[in-house]
Amino acid sequence: MIDRYSRPEFAAIWSDASRFALWLDIELAACAAMERDGRVPAGTAAQVRALAEGKLDPARILTIEATTRHDVIAFLTHVEELAGAPARWLHLGMTSSDVLDTALALQSVRALDGILAGIDGLAAALAEQARAHAKTPVMGRSHGIHAEPITAGLTFARWYAELGRARTRVVAARASIAVGKIAGAVGVYGNLDPQIEREALGALGLTHETVATQIVARDRHAEVLWALAMVGTAIEQIALGVRHWQRTEVGEAEEGFGKGQKGSSAMPHKKNPILSENLTGLARLLRGYAGAGLEDVALWHERDISHSSVERVSFPDATILTDFMLARATGLVRGLVVHPERMRANLEASGGLCFSEAVLLALVASGLARQEAYVFVQRCAHAAMAEGAAAGKGPPPGRFRALLGADPDVARHLDAATLDTCFDLEHHLRHAPTILARALGDPP
Amino acid sequence: MIDRYSRPEFAAIWSDASRFALWLDIELAACAAMERDGRVPAGTAAQVRALAEGKLDPARILTIEATTRHDVIAFLTHVEELAGAPARWLHLGMTSSDVLDTALALQSVRALDGILAGIDGLAAALAEQARAHAKTPVMGRSHGIHAEPITAGLTFARWYAELGRARTRVVAARASIAVGKIAGAVGVYGNLDPQIEREALGALGLTHETVATQIVARDRHAEVLWALAMVGTAIEQIALGVRHWQRTEVGEAEEGFGKGQKGSSAMPHKKNPILSENLTGLARLLRGYAGAGLEDVALWHERDISHSSVERVSFPDATILTDFMLARATGLVRGLVVHPERMRANLEASGGLCFSEAVLLALVASGLARQEAYVFVQRCAHAAMAEGAAAGKGPPPGRFRALLGADPDVARHLDAATLDTCFDLEHHLRHAPTILARALGDPP
Amino acid sequence: MIDRYSRPEFAAIWSDASRFALWLDIELAACAAMERDGRVPAGTAAQVRALAEGKLDPARILTIEATTRHDVIAFLTHVEELAGAPARWLHLGMTSSDVLDTALALQSVRALDGILAGIDGLAAALAEQARAHAKTPVMGRSHGIHAEPITAGLTFARWYAELGRARTRVVAARASIAVGKIAGAVGVYGNLDPQIEREALGALGLTHETVATQIVARDRHAEVLWALAMVGTAIEQIALGVRHWQRTEVGEAEEGFGKGQKGSSAMPHKKNPILSENLTGLARLLRGYAGAGLEDVALWHERDISHSSVERVSFPDATILTDFMLARATGLVRGLVVHPERMRANLEASGGLCFSEAVLLALVASGLARQEAYVFVQRCAHAAMAEGAAAGKGPPPGRFRALLGADPDVARHLDAATLDTCFDLEHHLRHAPTILARALGDPP
Amino acid sequence: MIDRYSRPEFAAIWSDASRFALWLDIELAACAAMERDGRVPAGTAAQVRALAEGKLDPARILTIEATTRHDVIAFLTHVEELAGAPARWLHLGMTSSDVLDTALALQSVRALDGILAGIDGLAAALAEQARAHAKTPVMGRSHGIHAEPITAGLTFARWYAELGRARTRVVAARASIAVGKIAGAVGVYGNLDPQIEREALGALGLTHETVATQIVARDRHAEVLWALAMVGTAIEQIALGVRHWQRTEVGEAEEGFGKGQKGSSAMPHKKNPILSENLTGLARLLRGYAGAGLEDVALWHERDISHSSVERVSFPDATILTDFMLARATGLVRGLVVHPERMRANLEASGGLCFSEAVLLALVASGLARQEAYVFVQRCAHAAMAEGAAAGKGPPPGRFRALLGADPDVARHLDAATLDTCFDLEHHLRHAPTILARALGDPP
Repeated sequence: MIDRYSRPEFAAIWSDASRFALWLDIELAACAAMERDGRVPAGTAAQVRALAEGKLDPARILTIEATTRHDVIAFLTHVEELAGAPARWLHLGMTSSDVLDTALALQSVRALDGILAGIDGLAAALAEQARAHAKTPVMGRSHGIHAEPITAGLTFARWYAELGRARTRVVAARASIAVGKIAGAVGVYGNLDPQIEREALGALGLTHETVATQIVARDRHAEVLWALAMVGTAIEQIALGVRHWQRTEVGEAEEGFGKGQKGSSAMPHKKNPILSENLTGLARLLRGYAGAGLEDVALWHERDISHSSVERVSFPDATILTDFMLARATGLVRGLVVHPERMRANLEASGGLCFSEAVLLALVASGLARQEAYVFVQRCAHAAMAEGAAAGKGPPPGRFRALLGADPDVARHLDAATLDTCFDLEHHLRHAPTILARALGDPP
Repeated sequence: MIDRYSRPEFAAIWSDASRFALWLDIELAACAAMERDGRVPAGTAAQVRALAEGKLDPARILTIEATTRHDVIAFLTHVEELAGAPARWLHLGMTSSDVLDTALALQSVRALDGILAGIDGLAAALAEQARAHAKTPVMGRSHGIHAEPITAGLTFARWYAELGRARTRVVAARASIAVGKIAGAVGVYGNLDPQIEREALGALGLTHETVATQIVARDRHAEVLWALAMVGTAIEQIALGVRHWQRTEVGEAEEGFGKGQKGSSAMPHKKNPILSENLTGLARLLRGYAGAGLEDVALWHERDISHSSVERVSFPDATILTDFMLARATGLVRGLVVHPERMRANLEASGGLCFSEAVLLALVASGLARQEAYVFVQRCAHAAMAEGAAAGKGPPPGRFRALLGADPDVARHLDAATLDTCFDLEHHLRHAPTILARALGDPP
Repeated sequence: MIDRYSRPEFAAIWSDASRFALWLDIELAACAAMERDGRVPAGTAAQVRALAEGKLDPARILTIEATTRHDVIAFLTHVEELAGAPARWLHLGMTSSDVLDTALALQSVRALDGILAGIDGLAAALAEQARAHAKTPVMGRSHGIHAEPITAGLTFARWYAELGRARTRVVAARASIAVGKIAGAVGVYGNLDPQIEREALGALGLTHETVATQIVARDRHAEVLWALAMVGTAIEQIALGVRHWQRTEVGEAEEGFGKGQKGSSAMPHKKNPILSENLTGLARLLRGYAGAGLEDVALWHERDISHSSVERVSFPDATILTDFMLARATGLVRGLVVHPERMRANLEASGGLCFSEAVLLALVASGLARQEAYVFVQRCAHAAMAEGAAAGKGPPPGRFRALLGADPDVARHLDAATLDTCFDLEHHLRHAPTILARALGDPP
Repeated sequence: MIDRYSRPEFAAIWSDASRFALWLDIELAACAAMERDGRVPAGTAAQVRALAEGKLDPARILTIEATTRHDVIAFLTHVEELAGAPARWLHLGMTSSDVLDTALALQSVRALDGILAGIDGLAAALAEQARAHAKTPVMGRSHGIHAEPITAGLTFARWYAELGRARTRVVAARASIAVGKIAGAVGVYGNLDPQIEREALGALGLTHETVATQIVARDRHAEVLWALAMVGTAIEQIALGVRHWQRTEVGEAEEGFGKGQKGSSAMPHKKNPILSENLTGLARLLRGYAGAGLEDVALWHERDISHSSVERVSFPDATILTDFMLARATGLVRGLVVHPERMRANLEASGGLCFSEAVLLALVASGLARQEAYVFVQRCAHAAMAEGAAAGKGPPPGRFRALLGADPDVARHLDAATLDTCFDLEHHLRHAPTILARALGDPP
């Protein structure tokens, strides 16, 4: 992944140095288990560790690989260079994929743990904003059209809930991928023993593949890439919400704008939601990696290695990107400038149309058939809208209420006082605290 | 494809009856060529045609297939039932795919021709709107934020141009898919002759595959599905534009609203851009089929038949959907209600900020360094915006101009008259007619 | 979905009749809860049910919709036609999506329950084959190249385990989608009460959305489509395995071939793995739907309806296809003809090369450095392979063993008896029963 | 893209240094056009070029960007640092995207030109192999099952033809992307002139966008990513072919195996088709980028910047990967070791079944109905196959011919001599040279 979208500490999970260090850990964990099993002289793992740990030279390994065209053999050759004779006991009965897949599992677990922490950070930011704006009324919109009011806090709480579901999927993917394999060339422990695998993987914090081939099954990896894509869509949902809020005509919230920041090289007045737009795009990349991952699952016989090149790129890229997105989204949410007064102004600009349902229901309660009542209310609403539109605006304030009052069909069923009670914002929002509390897990 | 998104006349291209009729055409075209070649008795094709054409019974063929589990053999058996002895000369040296792939090519050509007609209809509707609104100023927006003015006609012209590029891709895909094959089991004319293929395909309006296997190469089919997806994105771009225009706060255009139509079961005031939203979703489905098509290209040896099930679903579904989308989009564009007065009102609501670049350039022309000038203009712009925001609105009318006049750094370089010339909408839009004319191919 | 890939009983879940019946159930469940709440006269739901249940006319509803362009309003109008005055109490405070999304949840739950049953059937077939071939040696292959032996039962057990993981994901997706919503226009219960929702959904077997907008969140639906795609890949893995087994040169298993079945219209000798190829293609379609589903998650504000058209197509199509694939795959596995003798013959055709690792390990155990030993064994292996290749074949039987015995470097470390023990198939497969038992959950 | 899959010379197209150098070229091309137009003092571009060209410091620009959070403004600030006062005339009336999109077009053109050269190299390698193996018979396979013979040269010619179609798409994509824009903030030349754009882009070798917004339309970029994905599938088809050829049981060709190369860390005998498998995986990644590109097309109003992050990653990654794949595939094809004797042996192992169609046709020619003849031939074929299968093998040599001779129904229609002519390989392949010549464009 390009530097612009990488956080170095996280990206280090995928460095050559990290990988080779994990390979050594795995070889030594297996070696130690084989010592207990008796097939390797006691003390071998300790000897090799003393001579090789912290001394692996990635550049040297890559040089050897240029000849062998095989990465694990290059690695083992290098370890023999460092540790001498005892190193010949490493990798006994094992195949490269025992090392590679187990290492990929360990790297994935680290990456997902980092991502889970990132999710928690973003969730905390969302919860804070949800509570801060628990009572801030804002127009709810469906189809981009004013519908009925909600509170801004509910939107943050909704994002919090969706992120929580994304978290659940990451946790499941972590369990799926925390599976290693030390079962030999085609997974039957031909020159190994299930007990050795159990011990070695246990020491590394992993479990074993149920039925391995040469490798661990790739539906696990597809699940990881998908879970990341779903974290991406959860962030995309937030980003899309901010972009809509920040639109000039809406203006209900905006990204924090840094001192010295410039929105446009041409237009000095611009303040653009660039973080949100950036996150929107990155979510698409995550979907791309997830798609590639789905093609990796069905492999030939006891494995073909077509999945490997996909994973060399997509596992670092997708996890690094997700980590970056979480950090950026957390900053975005924390720094978001919400404009409650603009929310209120937009809500009022609807000229009361958002209460049309309450009028409809009052008419039904008065004894009208629903579809008949609908026609009465709709014609008043459209008339109010048409008046505003003629002036290039929304409906004039109070006009909808006035038209309803003047409509003989409506007036026959609802007196003025009853009509007034339909336009009560607080009543409309009375259940918002309940929803918020159940979403955030607050005491009711 | 479900009825809701199918136009029956178009969908008939993919009916069993159409397919079997094409199979007969293909067998008879090949048979006629073999008559000229001498391997089949003269008159055979005519005899079979007389007895079978128009009499094929799809249900009977499917019944036979239930036993043979092979569709072309079932078809040939049925033709023998209808035409008797002469029918045994059909399919000589041919393989099923000679029939199937040639038929799929013919169906695809028909479908793409229909789609090209649909594109032309939509293009005409766009051109008409482009000319109608050639001089309607509207705020241009980048990042969802007011930028500088354009004209509404330019937006329609842009969609017209993008659709034109989509058309070019469909034409290319049509050429790619207009390729049949009558080359036998693995494409080497083992029991056939290239001349027979040339004549038969020529009679059907197709050319031959360069190097066939058992089948025609599937990159051709992937291109068709992709070209449809690109028609989908061109329509999606239009739909997205309408959805933004129709947003309550923008209100610059809206979908025509039918007599008796209801926007929401709960809220009688609603008029939602449902056609545009519908088209947005359908574009996603087209992308899904295109993705499946890309997986069909690389096949085993001289063919595996994994592509077939994908095509049985995706070729009808994707073409029927595209046809439907084009028809719906054409109606949407034709019926679109544009509100020039609201466009003007929104433009003016920016309080002149959209001319900030002109001020910047005037300052640069006066001798200031660009970045210095930028800072002066930005601070006036942000101050005007802040005032409006405090009132839950955009910047007050004229306030940006006033702040610039009052800014000592600006005033030092620009007198009031020069400053006024920066706020000239007509000057800003002087090149719009040129762009429109070159897009629509109008005489300049 | 086309008839060819639909099982009618399953597809009926998605019929208009089923959907409208569910809508009525939902309206009545909500109505009953409102009766208890007091806002609707007691007995209303019962009255409407008596007059409308079983009498809904889908065609009539679609006719009304042609005018209203709104499906739920058309439905309610029809219910008023059937049930008269009491029907005006339906839908009180509700929005269309309360009905639509709750119905989609119910249909999805039914569909996933059917799919879970299908998974169980396929799993049973796999387990049976796994046990039947628990002791059938077969060459394990990596990269399509002979590696080391496994047993055929292990392959079935592996597919069983992967299908089990796919099942877990379907179960999770079922939990995600078993969520309805009766919370009104924008999800704040403006004219409703959380208690009404709880009761109504409880009666329908669903839970409520944590924070609804106008709709239930679409990450749930994306998860369903993804879980189906993963069932698809699990089946694809089986299909791919069968296709490889059935290859002419491998011939280790083949699809059952029906009486009267024909493999090719041109080549009477052909028996093709068409079921498996068909399943391979269908898995691609499922991936396409999953991709479209991922684009549906992030929506505008409190909903835009772009997801709806995607779901109208993809939910029926993807579930019907998955159901069909499971049924077909189950038949495929049950009817699979395994050829243990051909498996044995292929295994032996490797000329013992598959035991090269055992020789390598014996050399290491004798004191050689691993990489040195590797070179000795590799040169004997490649020499044996070269001899066979010269004759257009694999290595001659026993030649690898002979070359090892004749190699001075090898002979220096391993005597003939030790060398012989390296070529012991039973020893190599000694852990296979353990793996099988743990995969199938058999008592050890 | 990771180093492992990057060729440095190609990857340099996307370096910061390359990009900034292009930005300067673009600004100066525009500046020079403005000098001719009179709005900029003559000689400005030359002055700036003298002071800034070759002296841009990418690190310094990134440092400035950390404050401005705007890359083009950071660049211009740095140019002012280098070139002083004259630099203030740069970017006059332009917007960042005028520079960014024009630069992206130039980088894309360079990249696609490199890729076209790579395609030509691979095509040449394929043509050479096609001619070398023009007369090498090999069994054609459909469904993985022996069908009828072809020649190995035809397979290479087929790949050549498919690559040629991929080339055509890259050429079209190059034309689509060779489009820049110098049209100002929203594309209406508010402070510019179409003539300036024409001159500046002409000097850079580009044309102008028909109707620009703030940016060039993104269907162009989607086409580039798709065209690369199609190059990927063409390579995938080759790779898949090699993988099948190299399978142990087939063994008809294999990747060159380097001196010192090791196939498996566990199994010294292994020679795996790792290049081909690698290429298979990389093609999936290209499909992933193409998918993301399709989501970038429909943008908000006159642009939103969500596409940008996708392109920052996918344009370098997809082009670098394609370049790498072409180089690797060329090496693979050039180094491929073909085994004609094994091809012949496999062909003969079919026991003559591959001529079943010729027998079928001879029976039809003798007067039998096709479906009747089919049954006779099929029963002899299946009997021969069953005999072989009983021995764990293919049909015994000559057995199919013998069974046909002994079948009374067949014998009644075909005498022994006629039967023999059906088994003529040379006759079967008589048209192969014609196909090859027309594919390679050789003189006939």
